[in-house]
Amino acid sequence: MRTSNYLLSTVKETPSDAEVISHQLMLRAGMVRKLASGLYTWLPTGLRVLRKVETIVREEMNRAGAIEILMPVVQPADLWHETGRWEKFGPELLRIKDRHQRDFVLGPTHEEVITELVRKEVSSYKQLPLNLYQVQTKFRDEVRPRFGVMRAREFTMKDAYSFHTSQECLEKTYQVMFDAYCRIFDRLGLEYRPVIADTGSIGGSASHEFHVLAQSGEDDIVFSDGSDYAANIEKAEALAPTAPRAAATKTMELVDTPNAKTIEELVTQFELPIEKTVKTLIVKADEESEHDLIALLVRGDHELNEIKAEKLEHVAAPLTFASEEEIRAAVGAGPGSLGPVKLSIPVIADRSVAAMSDFGAGANEDGKHYFGINWGRDAAEPEVADIRNVVVGDPSPCGQGVLSIARGIEVGHIFQLGDNYSKSMNAAVLNEQGKNQVMTMGCYGIGVSRIVAAAIEQNNDDAGIIWPESIAPFTVAIIPMNMHKSHRVAEVAEQFYQALTEAGVDVLFDDRKERPGVMFKDMELCGIPHAIVIGDRSLDNQLVEYKNRRTGEKEEVAVDAVVAKIIAALK
Amino acid sequence: MRTSNYLLSTVKETPSDAEVISHQLMLRAGMVRKLASGLYTWLPTGLRVLRKVETIVREEMNRAGAIEILMPVVQPADLWHETGRWEKFGPELLRIKDRHQRDFVLGPTHEEVITELVRKEVSSYKQLPLNLYQVQTKFRDEVRPRFGVMRAREFTMKDAYSFHTSQECLEKTYQVMFDAYCRIFDRLGLEYRPVIADTGSIGGSASHEFHVLAQSGEDDIVFSDGSDYAANIEKAEALAPTAPRAAATKTMELVDTPNAKTIEELVTQFELPIEKTVKTLIVKADEESEHDLIALLVRGDHELNEIKAEKLEHVAAPLTFASEEEIRAAVGAGPGSLGPVKLSIPVIADRSVAAMSDFGAGANEDGKHYFGINWGRDAAEPEVADIRNVVVGDPSPCGQGVLSIARGIEVGHIFQLGDNYSKSMNAAVLNEQGKNQVMTMGCYGIGVSRIVAAAIEQNNDDAGIIWPESIAPFTVAIIPMNMHKSHRVAEVAEQFYQALTEAGVDVLFDDRKERPGVMFKDMELCGIPHAIVIGDRSLDNQLVEYKNRRTGEKEEVAVDAVVAKIIAALK
Repeated sequence: MRTSNYLLSTVKETPSDAEVISHQLMLRAGMVRKLASGLYTWLPTGLRVLRKVETIVREEMNRAGAIEILMPVVQPADLWHETGRWEKFGPELLRIKDRHQRDFVLGPTHEEVITELVRKEVSSYKQLPLNLYQVQTKFRDEVRPRFGVMRAREFTMKDAYSFHTSQECLEKTYQVMFDAYCRIFDRLGLEYRPVIADTGSIGGSASHEFHVLAQSGEDDIVFSDGSDYAANIEKAEALAPTAPRAAATKTMELVDTPNAKTIEELVTQFELPIEKTVKTLIVKADEESEHDLIALLVRGDHELNEIKAEKLEHVAAPLTFASEEEIRAAVGAGPGSLGPVKLSIPVIADRSVAAMSDFGAGANEDGKHYFGINWGRDAAEPEVADIRNVVVGDPSPCGQGVLSIARGIEVGHIFQLGDNYSKSMNAAVLNEQGKNQVMTMGCYGIGVSRIVAAAIEQNNDDAGIIWPESIAPFTVAIIPMNMHKSHRVAEVAEQFYQALTEAGVDVLFDDRKERPGVMFKDMELCGIPHAIVIGDRSLDNQLVEYKNRRTGEKEEVAVDAVVAKIIAALK
Repeated sequence: MRTSNYLLSTVKETPSDAEVISHQLMLRAGMVRKLASGLYTWLPTGLRVLRKVETIVREEMNRAGAIEILMPVVQPADLWHETGRWEKFGPELLRIKDRHQRDFVLGPTHEEVITELVRKEVSSYKQLPLNLYQVQTKFRDEVRPRFGVMRAREFTMKDAYSFHTSQECLEKTYQVMFDAYCRIFDRLGLEYRPVIADTGSIGGSASHEFHVLAQSGEDDIVFSDGSDYAANIEKAEALAPTAPRAAATKTMELVDTPNAKTIEELVTQFELPIEKTVKTLIVKADEESEHDLIALLVRGDHELNEIKAEKLEHVAAPLTFASEEEIRAAVGAGPGSLGPVKLSIPVIADRSVAAMSDFGAGANEDGKHYFGINWGRDAAEPEVADIRNVVVGDPSPCGQGVLSIARGIEVGHIFQLGDNYSKSMNAAVLNEQGKNQVMTMGCYGIGVSRIVAAAIEQNNDDAGIIWPESIAPFTVAIIPMNMHKSHRVAEVAEQFYQALTEAGVDVLFDDRKERPGVMFKDMELCGIPHAIVIGDRSLDNQLVEYKNRRTGEKEEVAVDAVVAKIIAALK
């Protein structure tokens, strides 16, 4: 491609409305433009990267035996009624009406559509297992779209769905997909981790997420230093302390704490070790509970894990915190003074809390706390559960090593769905015994457009993007200095362009009438892995300059050798 | 691809709800499945064809210097307000609201979005001309989706938009696109015609449609036998008769015609030559007219051309026929008895009608006609215009030859838009003189998914589809007879499969445990151009059978020679 025939659209200034580096760089490098909140147009440079990601995803999906299809973006509401998700799915599901006032949705995911297809097309166990996938535009009406294409409303996903007659067969395909995902992210040239994940609103039993590691990631990923264990913090179990609860040494006393509404204030004002404090969080109970509210207790230095809490018996899902009014009505005090002593609603304490003695907590009376609380003596022994996030240094739930935490961007998610969708939609086949059997399903997603942003989050420097070779918009930049004045420079540039293009290399030939500095900066900003700089003076010695974007390495290379050098480096 | 790892999904019975052959065959060959009215899932076989069409379109667009981008499906209403199309576009434009009750549309076309992009990205004439395209999902909420993917609601289009500072430059790119379209349809292996077209609701000056010729086409395409002239019948001019109007020979008489409400009834009951009759059609006038209604007159054997009529001064656009009540209120008679004599509303007569003498028409009195009407004497000389469809045998408007008519399916449409969109959206650049200048635009569409259906309409027989080689889902079918019983057959089939796949040929290896007859029929139904049939008996003589889907040619070929024969045929 010649820059003069291309829409490079680079921008010098950092756009003020872009918070994360990938969004800034995608705007600056002319990869995307915002059309409206969460809606982006992919410019040529961005689309080239997107298509390369798509191609790698497709090749590995095909290699793993999945078959590509294409389902509509617009889906009839009927199917969503069948699975109950028309009601359950939040406002992210954009519900629309056609000209005949019939209900449709803009597909945020395609479980319903694929299950409808397969229940009609497949009738016998002999046609299974079957793994169908698509690369398609999806729409989620995010309340606050942000970070550019990282959390857009319209985006590109690869979604695959597999169908089986047994859990065993599902597990086999699940492993095949797991391996295919590893190959995909390997080929994309990204540092990533598959981690044990929560199944969330999609449902099902087992699940792994694939995270690209990056400081700016929205997820906390937990690793063991003693094993391969890796999990999303949402899912990582916090083991119970191994030491037994220490005996009580203090009597309980009521203390005036008028200026201590938070754990931090309490700790600072009363010289209480934070490990001796307890936070009390009040959430709503579900409809089956006798109570309206439930108290959740975690240690002062710990954080509630909402995913774990939401799964507790009698706790309402989705997890809903009680309002101050509701708390006052039930407990008689505000959120800054709550605790387990003389509490009239059910209490669930984290494992760490259950092991505490002589601790401080709110007195359920505004401006007062109890210090020296002891379970059994001052408050009834609580129900105990794992409801906190693990922290760095916690023992690994696998039993080996201790945990560390890194930030990740979720770019893939695989699920064992079981019969979550096939049962409600009655997607069944005749099994080997000639009996009707509901199919067992798996589903496997990759955020294709999000990968583009995640790759940048992981690969950038002050000058711009540093693309992994496999997904660079162009592999080589040819930068001729003042070629409009030097016939010789133009000629050599043209030779390189022809030779590399013929060798199947994606080349951007910067033939603009721009100053060399502008061209260098643009090629660096766009992250093109290899650059050849051609100058009149070096040509006197039959030399050109080769520059590697990632290493920064610069080298004078003989004119005759540079094309071969690059082609060799690409192999 | 092995059939055992594939979703072939062929169907024996012709689906009852499919009217046209392409729709029937796409269902039977397992290419698409209906999800809801006008919404189709592309199964693997269909998607393979769709992608091949896409690839050819992309390659030729790139070759012609167009640059690929990708715009969102969901578009903000603001832009449609700017061009006025929010109001003008009918209910085919699906208007939706997001969770914040903001207005959006599902894009049926992208003039607004591209103009918004280019007015922001391009500021100088130096960046022009620019030709940007995308291959994207579009949505039109057709009132009556039909013929499968031929007239679906969700479909795939390639749409390109070019930007210029002069009409001359636009015309150059228009010609480049015209040539690129010819190369595309040539490579697709389709019989097609570029024809002069009406610009319709997109607007602009010059326009060509590209039609795939097929009996089932919805459009009439007009050709001259004496020149290259070809036009959509909507646009083909009907020249005025060269002979002058004959003198009156009859006196006008009022005739009772109680049972003649149509021209056919009149002609049959009164032995009147149809060329001596006139049809009177009443349409609404526009707001600037003094009248509410206007009468349009065409000869009894001619048809009104609604596109031409709609463009007449004072006629309302879109063309709207008056209701019987409105006609009775204005004229005093029903639609079966209308004519130009003593008519109180303005009359516009077709050129042929203006040349008539001694003709019959309704008397504007129920159950009565006048015979022997003559212009000037019995009715005022009418306003004259070309408002009819040409018919076979008409002289060509180019001045050479006479016209014939064929049916076509519109698969491409190119337009010179001028400043239709750029003016209302104020998309301007600084020109060479340093002054602000509104850009001149062209737009260029191809119905990618429709091409798949059109190709089938043109290429089929009783056994199924006959794909042109360039877009066949598979190029070669390997049909081993009873390979599950014959090790030798299986081995040879496997060898062919490996050799052809390595040569880059798309092969479907039918490794099912099916009877040979079932396999033959499926491969023919799916239209695979070349088949190799491997049987145990022929292998005794080191022979296999080669079969060509299009010619039906069958040939015994040496086992060692068949792969080379096919590879040679493909080049």
